[in-house]
Order: sequence, then C-alpha cells, then structure tokens
Amino acid sequence: MVRVHVHRVAVHFGDCDPAGIVFFPNFARWMDQASLAFFAACGVPPWRELERTTGIVGTPVLETRTRFRLPATYGETLEVHTSVEEWSAKTFRHRHAVRRGDELLCEGSEVRAFVVRDPSRPGRLKAVAVPDDIRSRCG
Amino acid sequence: MVRVHVHRVAVHFGDCDPAGIVFFPNFARWMDQASLAFFAACGVPPWRELERTTGIVGTPVLETRTRFRLPATYGETLEVHTSVEEWSAKTFRHRHAVRRGDELLCEGSEVRAFVVRDPSRPGRLKAVAVPDDIRSRCG
Amino acid sequence: MVRVHVHRVAVHFGDCDPAGIVFFPNFARWMDQASLAFFAACGVPPWRELERTTGIVGTPVLETRTRFRLPATYGETLEVHTSVEEWSAKTFRHRHAVRRGDELLCEGSEVRAFVVRDPSRPGRLKAVAVPDDIRSRCG
Amino acid sequence: MVRVHVHRVAVHFGDCDPAGIVFFPNFARWMDQASLAFFAACGVPPWRELERTTGIVGTPVLETRTRFRLPATYGETLEVHTSVEEWSAKTFRHRHAVRRGDELLCEGSEVRAFVVRDPSRPGRLKAVAVPDDIRSRCG
Repeated sequence: MVRVHVHRVAVHFGDCDPAGIVFFPNFARWMDQASLAFFAACGVPPWRELERTTGIVGTPVLETRTRFRLPATYGETLEVHTSVEEWSAKTFRHRHAVRRGDELLCEGSEVRAFVVRDPSRPGRLKAVAVPDDIRSRCG
Repeated sequence: MVRVHVHRVAVHFGDCDPAGIVFFPNFARWMDQASLAFFAACGVPPWRELERTTGIVGTPVLETRTRFRLPATYGETLEVHTSVEEWSAKTFRHRHAVRRGDELLCEGSEVRAFVVRDPSRPGRLKAVAVPDDIRSRCG
Repeated sequence: MVRVHVHRVAVHFGDCDPAGIVFFPNFARWMDQASLAFFAACGVPPWRELERTTGIVGTPVLETRTRFRLPATYGETLEVHTSVEEWSAKTFRHRHAVRRGDELLCEGSEVRAFVVRDPSRPGRLKAVAVPDDIRSRCG
Repeated sequence: MVRVHVHRVAVHFGDCDPAGIVFFPNFARWMDQASLAFFAACGVPPWRELERTTGIVGTPVLETRTRFRLPATYGETLEVHTSVEEWSAKTFRHRHAVRRGDELLCEGSEVRAFVVRDPSRPGRLKAVAVPDDIRSRCG
C-alpha cells in the first residue's frame, strides 16, 4: 500500500520569470513543502518539536531528479501528489507528481535522510537511521 | 575541448533554513545563474535582447539531476563550474559542479531547450532548434 | 466603504531562516500575492491578459512601509487582510494586515502604480493613470 | 563619523518577474545581505558563532521603509551602501542606498534588534540590549 498526500500550490506572479512561466527552482521548493506536508499528514510532528525529543532537525535532500513536461504560470493552482516510494536503512525516496487538473506538469524523485546536529563538529549535521515509529506512521 | 565557466556565489543568511544549512532549491537557482553566466561569458546577449532579434526568451529546463554531497552555510563562498556536456538538435545538457575550495559539494546535470513565444497560443512557449551561432560561440 | 480581501498563506520550512522564524522578505512576497489576489477578487484580469488589451504589465511598488510585531514560523497559517486605502491619479495605496488568528503579526502599507512598457526605451516601464474601470471595480 | 559598507549584488534572471524587472521583495533580501555584510566588515562574527558565545541568533527587522525610484533588471550589478544611522538601547537603524553606477535606485531604512532564544517559550525569541562591544566595533 502506498500512501499519497496531495499538497495544493497557488502559483503567484513573483514565482514567474521574465518568460512569464514559473522559475523552475520553485518546483523544488514546492516539492519540499509537499514532503513536509506528507509527514504532517502522517502524524509526524514538525522538526522543531522532533529536535527537542529526538535531535532530528530535518530531512535534507541527497539526490533529486526532476522531469519538466509543461510550464505553469501565475493564477493557476497545482497539486503535488507525494508518496514514499522506498524506505532504506538510512534514507528514503519520495516521488512527487505535479498536476494541473488532468495534466502532469512535472515529476520529481528525491532521496532524503533524517539528520541530527553533529555534536563533534558545531554547525555540521549527520544522518541517522530512519526512526521506526516515523516509518510505521508513514507506511 | 570543453569550455568551463566559473560562477561565484556568496551564501547568505536568508539562503539557509532552520537547520542552519542552505535550503536546497537555492542550488537550482545558483545553477540557473551559472547557466546564464556561461552564455554571457561566451558572448551570447541577454535573453531580452535575443528576444528582439530572434524571439528567444530563455532556456527552460526539461530535466535536472542533482547529487548533494556536503551542505553549505552562510558566510561561505562557492564556485559553480559550468560546461555544456552535449549539444543535440533541440536541446543541450549542462554539467554544474559546485565547489567550496577543494570540496565538491554538489553536482548537477540539466537538459535545456531554447524557446520562443508560441504565436498560436498566447502565454505558451515552444522549443526551437539550437541556433548555430550560439552553439559555435559556446563550443 | 472599504473592500477587504483575505489572502491565506501557509508558512513553510523553507520560508524560515536559521533563527527558526520567517525570513522577513517573505512578508513582502506575501503582500504582493495579496495585492494581486485583491484585484482578482474584484474581477480584474491577470496582468498577462491586461497587457494584451491595455498594455498594463503590473503594479510595481513605489514605496513600502512595514511594521513587524510578532514572528511566525512553519506549520502556521496566516491571513493577509488587504484593502486600497487611497486612490490617486497615478498611484494607489494598499494596506495589508497580516494576522495569525487573533494576533496581528505585521502591518504593511504600499504605494503602487499601474505601468506599461515604454515604447521609446526598450526594457523600461512607465506609469499610466489608474484605469477608471479598474478603480470602479475595486471601489 | 559614519561607517559605510558597500555590498555588491549581481541581478539574475530568476530575480525578475514577468514584467522583466526585479521582483521587489528581492531588494529586502539584498538589504538583509548588506546588513550582515556590514557587521562582518566591522569584525562581528557570524550569528552561528555569536549564538554559542552570547546566545544572539540574529537581528530581526522591526520596521522597514523603502522608496523605489528606478527598476533594475538582470545582467546589472548593483551596490548597496549600508550604514547604522542610529543606535538606541535595544534597537538600531540601518540606512541602505541601492545604486547602479551614478543612479540611486532605491533607499531603505530598517529598525532591527539583537535577539536571543527565549528560554521560557521554546521557539520564541526576545530582544536584548545592543551589546557594547558590537556597537563599539561598528562605530
């Protein structure tokens, strides 16, 4: 069973570039929003709470792959359909499909890891195993 | 012979997220800057001039792939090393290596196309063949 | 009678800085969204349509003033309450109040003008009188 | 004597909106960069170091006022001339002048405070007195 969360995005004027279409790094931003919305929908608390209880400060991206099929512009509403395609010991892989009604605009795949602050190197982070309780909530 | 352009980026406070590291969509933004800087260094005029002479309004991304190896934070200076790895009839492929001194932070690959406004569908764009003179300037 | 439009904003992880609070330029971005949403709610078409019929490409800001009272963070939903406080011959003044439930987080005032592309100077814009029909729609 | 720091900004394609000019919240972002660059130039360590020694996590903005005179577009290089116009017990006021060669594009004024994390309310910040040593370094 794959759990899919749908995150809605309103495209705004300032998200678009001089060609009149969405400046593409915004799709990465919306996929990041969709990732966090996925975890929230599964009942995982926000990172700032998780940091206090587990030390986890977020899920940085290790690898992304995105295919852009159709552009979008301001005034449109998009949907990001997000799931976890694969769980590994220390990483997981998201799949995001960005849709506008029946059209598939863009598809993304992200490998991410849960990280904590590295006590031995101030300002650095290190990956930890995917917490069992988070994985089971998101199953 | 591969032509490589180096684009310098200063990382700022507002580029970083609550985990204290660069919010990753900024790397896509910096690679986009590096792409345009590459063309400028090859003598290609800015898109707004090219639009008046050729109709070309930019080089949207069709596909990206990025591997993140090390995080960055504010106060650091990064270098994006950019080249065109492959020219096809209607697309080209960029390679970007983001470095901090001797460290390789992140590697990206982008497939892009040159586009013009589509006269038959207001607000839409369409891909055109890579212009010969641009390709020869960038060779 | 003052017409007020409410624009809802979900605050995301990537909107926040290493101090864990919203990076303040995002409030300017959200007020810009709220401005356009105000005009859309009044029945004014998007700028890209207005450009074809009237030449108007947007309403750049001439002056802004913002007072920040309380910070916001990710996971919160904000409301931007937007009105036009004053219409002049060539400019108008927006008032934006950003609220989180009962709390007033931030207040902004913006002076804006309607602009068209300047035919005598490519790449430049020039202000035009506030169109009567737009003003009457928004009254 | 007023100490002025000059922060250079290259304007990029993705900083511009469908009207072809800089999307104005970017000016707030550049002024924030200029503020931090001002403190760095005065010898103040980055906030992440200051947090370890003093608890200070940044200088959030309490009030901003900006006047926009001329637009900018991509390919241009701007200079932000930044000073501290006034020091108060708990706040200070920056002045920023954004220039392109001889032209003054935009002027901003910001009131900011130094803040620490509030131990009694997790996730909240509170203002502290301007540290004497920082003030004397920046005089």
